[in-house]
Amino acid sequence: ANAAGRHPHATIGIEGHAVSVAALDAAAGRAAAGFRALGLAPGDRVCLVMPASTEALHAWFGLAKAGLVEVPLNPAGGSELLRYCIEQSGATVVVCDAGREAMVRELIRDVEAVRYLVVAGGGTPKAAARVDRLAFEDVLAHPEGPVHEVDPASAAVILYTSGTTGPPKGVLLSHRANINLARHTTRLLGYTANDRLYSVFPLYHSNARYCSVMAAIEAGADLVMHRRFSASRFWDICREHGITAFNYQGAMMSILHKQPPRPDDADHPVRLGFGAPCPPEIFADFERRFGVRLTEIYGSTEVSIVTDMPPGDRRIGTAGNESENYQVAIVDDQDQPVPSGTTGEIVVRPKKPGWMFDGYHRMPGATAESWRNLWFHTGDRGQLDDDGFLTFVDRVKDSIRRRGENISSWEIERVVGGHPDVAQVAAYGVPSTLSEEEVMVAVVPREGRILDPAVLIGHCGGALTSFAVPRFVRIVNALPMTPSQRVEKYRLRAEGVTEGTWDSQAGTQ
Amino acid sequence: ANAAGRHPHATIGIEGHAVSVAALDAAAGRAAAGFRALGLAPGDRVCLVMPASTEALHAWFGLAKAGLVEVPLNPAGGSELLRYCIEQSGATVVVCDAGREAMVRELIRDVEAVRYLVVAGGGTPKAAARVDRLAFEDVLAHPEGPVHEVDPASAAVILYTSGTTGPPKGVLLSHRANINLARHTTRLLGYTANDRLYSVFPLYHSNARYCSVMAAIEAGADLVMHRRFSASRFWDICREHGITAFNYQGAMMSILHKQPPRPDDADHPVRLGFGAPCPPEIFADFERRFGVRLTEIYGSTEVSIVTDMPPGDRRIGTAGNESENYQVAIVDDQDQPVPSGTTGEIVVRPKKPGWMFDGYHRMPGATAESWRNLWFHTGDRGQLDDDGFLTFVDRVKDSIRRRGENISSWEIERVVGGHPDVAQVAAYGVPSTLSEEEVMVAVVPREGRILDPAVLIGHCGGALTSFAVPRFVRIVNALPMTPSQRVEKYRLRAEGVTEGTWDSQAGTQ
Ligand SMILES: Nc1ncnc2c1ncn2[C@@H]1O[C@H](COP(=O)(O)O)[C@@H](O)[C@H]1O
Repeated sequence: ANAAGRHPHATIGIEGHAVSVAALDAAAGRAAAGFRALGLAPGDRVCLVMPASTEALHAWFGLAKAGLVEVPLNPAGGSELLRYCIEQSGATVVVCDAGREAMVRELIRDVEAVRYLVVAGGGTPKAAARVDRLAFEDVLAHPEGPVHEVDPASAAVILYTSGTTGPPKGVLLSHRANINLARHTTRLLGYTANDRLYSVFPLYHSNARYCSVMAAIEAGADLVMHRRFSASRFWDICREHGITAFNYQGAMMSILHKQPPRPDDADHPVRLGFGAPCPPEIFADFERRFGVRLTEIYGSTEVSIVTDMPPGDRRIGTAGNESENYQVAIVDDQDQPVPSGTTGEIVVRPKKPGWMFDGYHRMPGATAESWRNLWFHTGDRGQLDDDGFLTFVDRVKDSIRRRGENISSWEIERVVGGHPDVAQVAAYGVPSTLSEEEVMVAVVPREGRILDPAVLIGHCGGALTSFAVPRFVRIVNALPMTPSQRVEKYRLRAEGVTEGTWDSQAGTQ
Repeated sequence: ANAAGRHPHATIGIEGHAVSVAALDAAAGRAAAGFRALGLAPGDRVCLVMPASTEALHAWFGLAKAGLVEVPLNPAGGSELLRYCIEQSGATVVVCDAGREAMVRELIRDVEAVRYLVVAGGGTPKAAARVDRLAFEDVLAHPEGPVHEVDPASAAVILYTSGTTGPPKGVLLSHRANINLARHTTRLLGYTANDRLYSVFPLYHSNARYCSVMAAIEAGADLVMHRRFSASRFWDICREHGITAFNYQGAMMSILHKQPPRPDDADHPVRLGFGAPCPPEIFADFERRFGVRLTEIYGSTEVSIVTDMPPGDRRIGTAGNESENYQVAIVDDQDQPVPSGTTGEIVVRPKKPGWMFDGYHRMPGATAESWRNLWFHTGDRGQLDDDGFLTFVDRVKDSIRRRGENISSWEIERVVGGHPDVAQVAAYGVPSTLSEEEVMVAVVPREGRILDPAVLIGHCGGALTSFAVPRFVRIVNALPMTPSQRVEKYRLRAEGVTEGTWDSQAGTQ
């Protein structure tokens, strides 16, 4: 609201629909009153199942103004995952777009806590059902009510993340933590009202939310968002929109760098790129060829930006060194610090209040476990050099990272394991040629059955987020197990894509 | 075991019964085998309900060697409290002394998890009952079995503490944390095999356990323990036993200082006192008159020793400054650090692994709450001066501190509130003339009933730990409440002992 006052004319455009910050602020005021009129009290959760859109922005900022807790979910998420998150959040309201109404109705059929379904963008009201249906347009048409004082330390949002083994965990973030991340980004990149930012990241992830939308509002910059990354049109889009800075993840950079060189590769207003991890072997060449300067950081949904690149000493291949907000250390499995140059788990702790997450929603055990010895255990492995520069190595945690998305092994194993011919399954990541990982499963067929990988992949279709559908399927007689009967995924990872492994993209590349 | 090898002849004497470290080590080996023979697996809990005794030491070290988790409880604890702790610990075995068998049998009647009752020191086996009865002597007579490798990072003990509102919480401590505290104490005080320590503290509290018993074993010093503190005989006892160092809490020091001066006040081998908080106004005089040097620390069961007095710069009235093991800070209720000289909550975090507690047993919510923003919130208030010296001010947390014992308001309120004539009750501490606090309750009688304070106190007798029985009873029409209906105890505390307050010691002093 303060930022809206300073730069009311800055705009946020999503897929061609733009809204000014002033208009967003006004719409949010009405949405806040509309949500409150449903009888919701501060702290109540509201799930959003909708693609990036100006409606999604209205809902986000409306909920924030009302002191309600937003739970933005991946609208392309598998049904298993979506249902789990809606239920686990304890939300009483779900907001979706008209195209997803039928799917969402089916999902929430047995989720008792949900009392309202709010549908944006038309659709035909269906009778029946336990939940009340409202049009989001009616929520938004509510006369602006009294302004609620929202405690900056209170929960603003729950972002589901698939860090470690088991179901996804809901990362609780306060208003203050979100604002701090936005300001940190703005300062780090030096954004001003003359900037025009670009993002292709989803609105249910902290990157687009705080390092683009809120950072732009803070700086008074404009922001352009698209739902998809187009490698061939990327620089044309930047030229067309007068983009000065963009956010990236590793695979984007590899793909852009693989495009055939063009004489106008550096002929655009873009001067900054922000993200991680741009493969070190292309880093310098990328900067030179496209005439941009890249800034890398290390962080996560839980701890925002932990390390960043000091402008004077970037050390390519590292994610920079300790920011002013966090301590970072590398420890062994007894939490003992290891010497510099040695790989261990990356652990972090805040130097100031108001930066870190407040815990995993309704998972105090997982929260305390991740906070043991009063360090947050990131589940990532890395090294520090003698000057405190961090090199990311790989992940301890059981999640797969594909093109900036964290994918839960748990989710894949649930769905693949649900196929009647599957006895056992392990999902894991194998290195991608682009950056980060590709999804792979090792599957033990049920005795006497023959498994067709293509059929198995077809089975995943409806139930899994599209980007979680395995690319590689390996059929094995048995999974390697520890004495305590845990699957030794590190072995499977080390074996990688074997000769007999089936590749769903074999024909397409 | 290692320490036993270095100083096998050092002795620990409790109430006149001494055991050498070598004999303790051997007994512990047999007890370990005996406990394991009950079918217990590493991590299983065993409650001890027995006074300080050599049997209690055998049980303690036997459980440690077996990798079992010891849960030493206050044997004089109220039945409500004891039953709660046995049940909450999930113990399968309870060990008690013969004198407490009947009481303990009654307590565990409905605690399903308990399968064995082990009785030390004779008594007549009763038939019947769900639990198997064993003689501790038979457990101890077990031939020593194979040595179990115990992971130093695994849980050694659960110590119940009444930190904040609500029921007591079980502080989980690892073997490593206990050894670290013992070594820290030994180093801080400079104990050697020539020392002879003295303690009157109970074996269910970390002070006697790690700053006396294990510190003595580490140093190869002898240790003398008594169950009660005698002011009049204190220095005679020290002379008789050749004591060189003793542990104290505040009230002990006031009481000793109030004794009429004697010409032989400084004629004894004692050179060191270790504890907190000796009232600052008597500190220097105490040292001079009794010829001892006092060392004060700040710490708790959860975090052992946080600050200690550097020998060269003691700053009387403070608890010293940051030890090498912990960071300490003073924060406001938003976790924001306050300037030096300002009072706020004392928060601490370890600089190294293996010093702090591993959480509250089966209370992940309370654990995560106390660890928010990755600082341990002590529930105490204090100040730091410009050089980082800590002055303790008072407690935020809802417990009462009387003569070194933490008393749970929750426990007192449960028992007093259980009286049929009581509508509402609040328990709190009021300053004691000795040091620390006395227990006080404000009680609202049920409509139409007249409450006799003496009857109320009688009602507390059986159910409350003796030291938790209120000294002061104040009858009121209503308790001061916050808008959110929490009792404003700080108001009651500020009003203190009012004119109409009933004092159970009025006649006796
Ligand atoms: N600089 C980096 N290099 C490589 N991976 C990173 C880097 N920063 C973050 N990540 C990965 O992204 C995860 C955080 O994902 P998220 O919570 O979705 O933001 C981290 O836990 C890492 O696994």
